[in-house]
Amino acid sequence: SLSLQVKTVTMIPGDGIGPEISAAVMKIFEAAKAPITWEERNVTAIKGPGGRWMIPPDAKESMDRSKIGLKGPLKTPIAAGHPSMNLLLRKTFDLYANVRPCVSIEGYKTPYTDVNLVTIRENTEGEYSGIEHMIVDGVVQSIKLITENASRRIAEYAFEYARNNKRTSVTAVHKANIMRMSDGLFLRKCREVAENYKDIKFTEMYLDTVCLNMVQDPTQFDVLVMPNLYGDILSDLCAGLIGGLGVTPSGNIGANGVAIFESVHGTAPDIAGMDLANPTALLLSAVMMLRHMGLHDHADKIQTACFDTIRDKKVLTKDLGGSAKCSEFTAEICRRVQDLG
Amino acid sequence: SLSLQVKTVTMIPGDGIGPEISAAVMKIFEAAKAPITWEERNVTAIKGPGGRWMIPPDAKESMDRSKIGLKGPLKTPIAAGHPSMNLLLRKTFDLYANVRPCVSIEGYKTPYTDVNLVTIRENTEGEYSGIEHMIVDGVVQSIKLITENASRRIAEYAFEYARNNKRTSVTAVHKANIMRMSDGLFLRKCREVAENYKDIKFTEMYLDTVCLNMVQDPTQFDVLVMPNLYGDILSDLCAGLIGGLGVTPSGNIGANGVAIFESVHGTAPDIAGMDLANPTALLLSAVMMLRHMGLHDHADKIQTACFDTIRDKKVLTKDLGGSAKCSEFTAEICRRVQDLG
Ligand SMILES: CC(C)[C@H](C(=O)O)[C@@H](O)C(=O)O
Ligand SMILES: CC(C)[C@H](C(=O)O)[C@@H](O)C(=O)O
Repeated sequence: SLSLQVKTVTMIPGDGIGPEISAAVMKIFEAAKAPITWEERNVTAIKGPGGRWMIPPDAKESMDRSKIGLKGPLKTPIAAGHPSMNLLLRKTFDLYANVRPCVSIEGYKTPYTDVNLVTIRENTEGEYSGIEHMIVDGVVQSIKLITENASRRIAEYAFEYARNNKRTSVTAVHKANIMRMSDGLFLRKCREVAENYKDIKFTEMYLDTVCLNMVQDPTQFDVLVMPNLYGDILSDLCAGLIGGLGVTPSGNIGANGVAIFESVHGTAPDIAGMDLANPTALLLSAVMMLRHMGLHDHADKIQTACFDTIRDKKVLTKDLGGSAKCSEFTAEICRRVQDLG
Repeated sequence: SLSLQVKTVTMIPGDGIGPEISAAVMKIFEAAKAPITWEERNVTAIKGPGGRWMIPPDAKESMDRSKIGLKGPLKTPIAAGHPSMNLLLRKTFDLYANVRPCVSIEGYKTPYTDVNLVTIRENTEGEYSGIEHMIVDGVVQSIKLITENASRRIAEYAFEYARNNKRTSVTAVHKANIMRMSDGLFLRKCREVAENYKDIKFTEMYLDTVCLNMVQDPTQFDVLVMPNLYGDILSDLCAGLIGGLGVTPSGNIGANGVAIFESVHGTAPDIAGMDLANPTALLLSAVMMLRHMGLHDHADKIQTACFDTIRDKKVLTKDLGGSAKCSEFTAEICRRVQDLG
């Protein structure tokens, strides 16, 4: 095999169960001999010059160098005016594409089988613009901002993703019947970009229709691309179809290779520090990360070991229906990784 | 039994399969001796003074008198600038609450059982304000408008509905973590109104979390109340859980008893006029209408006959898994209605 250059990844363990599941991932990566060194950083927001919230300089500096981050769950901020750290990270590194593959996991029973789709969410604008006004007392407006550039960029990302991942269709999800100008612009850019990808089938569908069809037969969908809020909703819906946020990976992708991969479940403070957490979502996010870095062999090995462990049903954490500790589940995956050579 | 005053209802048969399923409903109402006379009206939008689109005066006049409408599906307008007739009707009669009960139908197999919830959607503002601008070339904003009055009104409707329908909980669905001012205002009004309904449990949940939980276990939900777009999405999602728009009723409720009940499926032009359509959604909407009018005995009888027919599986339309014609399915329901006395 090739001798690989060791690459640095910024590890943001996060809060609650974050440190445990991060440790689990690092152990499995070690067993897989993944050529990665970790730089651990905390990201508690701090107030910078002018009172603007920012991520701590040493975390920013690490990300600027490594370009790649892996992130556990972060506490929801409670201080007034304190931003969501997730949003701040997306913004700081212009991570414009949120990518969530939702693939049914063999052996993990849900009402659906053979789900195999990817939601691609515009991650920088739309309903998340943060622009709101009180017009008069009791009348508030929030502004949804859609730009040509961001729409084209996410559409291009979706089609490139489809092509590079041997997927055959892209569906643009919208409400252009209601928001004719904004969703209309988004949709127009998708149509334009589709012209350059004749090998990929392009369809468009109203968000409400997608939701209806999704719960009736998710196997009809492949790659879905959509504005920010719709992606927030659909990605969670789709995660639900395959077993929830505990098994769903996520990647936030920017330009020039910059990306942060993260588990999107919560911090589970009730079981934090008790060796009971399920590291699967973070592990599968780390597998996405390996593919992003071109380390497909390591990705395959770890993914196989993880799915085999779940299919085998012998060593599972509680949320997956077993009684194993996080460390036992992790050890089982490590054993299988090593068996795979 | 009481001698009942005959009431007039405005019937808008609609396009495509609309006339067939409307005829089916009227037949079943006749069999049930429902004290209703129908005033049939078409609602093709016309251009009024100043070029504003409006519904035809004779339809408006009928609704103004009867206050109650039953509506089949309407063609999506294709002329530029032509409004959605559904939206125009909601606006013209200030039908501020869209109510969709989603209840699992015995004998109609879906991945879920025991679904029994109601989505209550604010029907007049939010993302449906229609206010959009192009700021500069390639930058568009759509305005989501949330007002204190509309938020309070829909919250009050939801709690009243819960109380009057022996339901025990109301969940406010929002994204106030992102749209802090607009969804924040909506949520605040829900909380305030909840104070006056100590008999009803109040919870609040992010829209994305609702979607995730909904597909994992819909039985945890009861009454859900939310802004316009979220209701559009969630009501279709929930319809999907119980078998789709072909079996889901809907009501648009205004002040002073004004209401339009409607099937929310499409016009199905491919089978229009072929006696193949399924009238269930319109029939169940008509049952909601009867309850709205206080005609509970007639409502019970028709609903029982409809559900018994579906459970029995002998006479079903094609979309329900059978091979009966619309007229045969209708006749079977009529027969059962008459048997019920
Ligand atoms: C934490 C929250 C701000 C975030 C969002 O709304 O985007 C989350 O739901 C997500 O999907 O990453
Ligand atoms: C037809 C369309 C304008 C409408 C909407 O978006 O509200 C429909 O989806 C609905 O739910 O009644």
